[in-house]
Amino acid sequence: MLIVVYLIAITVEAMSGALAAGRRNMDIFGVAVIAFVTALGGGTIRDLVLGHFPIRWTQHPEYIVLVISAGLLTTVIARYMHHLKRVFLVLDAMGLIAFSLIGCSVALAMDYSIIVAIMAGMMTGICGGMLRDVLCNQVPLVLRRELYASVSLVVCVLFIGLRELGIDTDLNTALSFAGGLTLRLLAIWGGWKLPTFSYQQRWD
Amino acid sequence: MLIVVYLIAITVEAMSGALAAGRRNMDIFGVAVIAFVTALGGGTIRDLVLGHFPIRWTQHPEYIVLVISAGLLTTVIARYMHHLKRVFLVLDAMGLIAFSLIGCSVALAMDYSIIVAIMAGMMTGICGGMLRDVLCNQVPLVLRRELYASVSLVVCVLFIGLRELGIDTDLNTALSFAGGLTLRLLAIWGGWKLPTFSYQQRWD
Amino acid sequence: MLIVVYLIAITVEAMSGALAAGRRNMDIFGVAVIAFVTALGGGTIRDLVLGHFPIRWTQHPEYIVLVISAGLLTTVIARYMHHLKRVFLVLDAMGLIAFSLIGCSVALAMDYSIIVAIMAGMMTGICGGMLRDVLCNQVPLVLRRELYASVSLVVCVLFIGLRELGIDTDLNTALSFAGGLTLRLLAIWGGWKLPTFSYQQRWD
Repeated sequence: MLIVVYLIAITVEAMSGALAAGRRNMDIFGVAVIAFVTALGGGTIRDLVLGHFPIRWTQHPEYIVLVISAGLLTTVIARYMHHLKRVFLVLDAMGLIAFSLIGCSVALAMDYSIIVAIMAGMMTGICGGMLRDVLCNQVPLVLRRELYASVSLVVCVLFIGLRELGIDTDLNTALSFAGGLTLRLLAIWGGWKLPTFSYQQRWD
Repeated sequence: MLIVVYLIAITVEAMSGALAAGRRNMDIFGVAVIAFVTALGGGTIRDLVLGHFPIRWTQHPEYIVLVISAGLLTTVIARYMHHLKRVFLVLDAMGLIAFSLIGCSVALAMDYSIIVAIMAGMMTGICGGMLRDVLCNQVPLVLRRELYASVSLVVCVLFIGLRELGIDTDLNTALSFAGGLTLRLLAIWGGWKLPTFSYQQRWD
Repeated sequence: MLIVVYLIAITVEAMSGALAAGRRNMDIFGVAVIAFVTALGGGTIRDLVLGHFPIRWTQHPEYIVLVISAGLLTTVIARYMHHLKRVFLVLDAMGLIAFSLIGCSVALAMDYSIIVAIMAGMMTGICGGMLRDVLCNQVPLVLRRELYASVSLVVCVLFIGLRELGIDTDLNTALSFAGGLTLRLLAIWGGWKLPTFSYQQRWD
């Protein structure tokens, strides 16, 4: 089940990357690059940091084809996509959570400590979007937007907590997934934000 | 032969990095850093993603010395360099192609699949320039410029296609090189560009 | 001794990251991310490039807790911090030097060549700040500021030179530390800068 959600997730992330590339007037090659980086960059950074070789996508050519196709398709259907805004937000939330759970699992399977597993889950969830924004020359959205990265944190903590309690992995995945999705949708619906830290003082 | 072209390539890339640093008024240390990252960053990212340790340049101190020297030399001769614009563009094209071919070969020697080899070639070819632009706080040029990254793709596909046909590696390298160089020079000459994707709609 | 300085160093770097995040009005999650990346990003890049797995911080959960706590604490005490500017600058200088010495040592322990050890020291010293600035969408300060990255270079060269002369490691560390700190403080005090390279010519 998580695999299906994962495939939907990288597709949706690729599309969000393609739209960001379009906002910078990139050519279609740039669109493909940003789509790829947005969808698979988070997992790549996780695998690098955990020393988990070979990197996951290098063993799954179908992921590469999928995300690049999704990116290029987006250039054609972009004009109609805002009608699907709500569907898109839900799929994006599901992707964020799937990424986080997969990241946690990879780290735990490699016997990393709990805190590193949480970091790995969050890296998988948010680094793709951070790379997208850096390549599009803007401050990463995930560091400023309404509860997004925090959802990833909550999902990872919930998953690891239930695991420590000895809950069966499948049930645990389902519960963490449902909990994270509920939180994210509530956050979108209510416009929940974390407090912001503003600091304008110059020391020089 | 490819080694000589490679050394020219990293020199030229280092110089392009130094000029980009100059546009941002960096100090000479910054110039050295950007020269290094532009010239050797693409190969570094390729080696990281393929899990190819030790990273190539760590075994070749002479590359480090070469690219930093080229970067610093550029600060002295920059004012005369625009006279050499055409030479520079040709050398840059040769470098892009050499990088791509080397990247492909490294991945194939590690038994990665064809599609990963193509990705590795492109990463080697374009990631150095992307890192340069990110560090200089601009949207990567390679994602917007006239046929550049696409030349890398064509070269990789050509090289791997001929290899599948059983063509001898030396001949294959020469043919792919010539094909890529022709395409790149035609693209510069004709100002060929890929179609651009513009998307200005905000969803919020 | 170097461990204590190292812990102070990552705390100070985390705080500088948090202030940079505050200048971009990030939420507290973003503050934690930037604090983490600034403090531990340099060592991460060094470990990746050297192929030194597992990455150091993944084995030290206390580092993760420390830097994130320091980042979050900064949001509370930021308004008083400019009174401590001088203390902060000295601690920051000590951190830069500790990072550089640790980076050198890691590379030497892995039998990398001298020039790679120098690069490793500098990567540890300056890459955290570079990542911080890239994520905050500005040209890295270390590439433009008064003698900073160069201090890292001097420390690495000094440390390796004394090591080649057969000086005992503890004495060597103390001497390199003192030398680097003196240089950095003199540079701040005198406003020493490297010459800048400005290049505004467009070729297009």
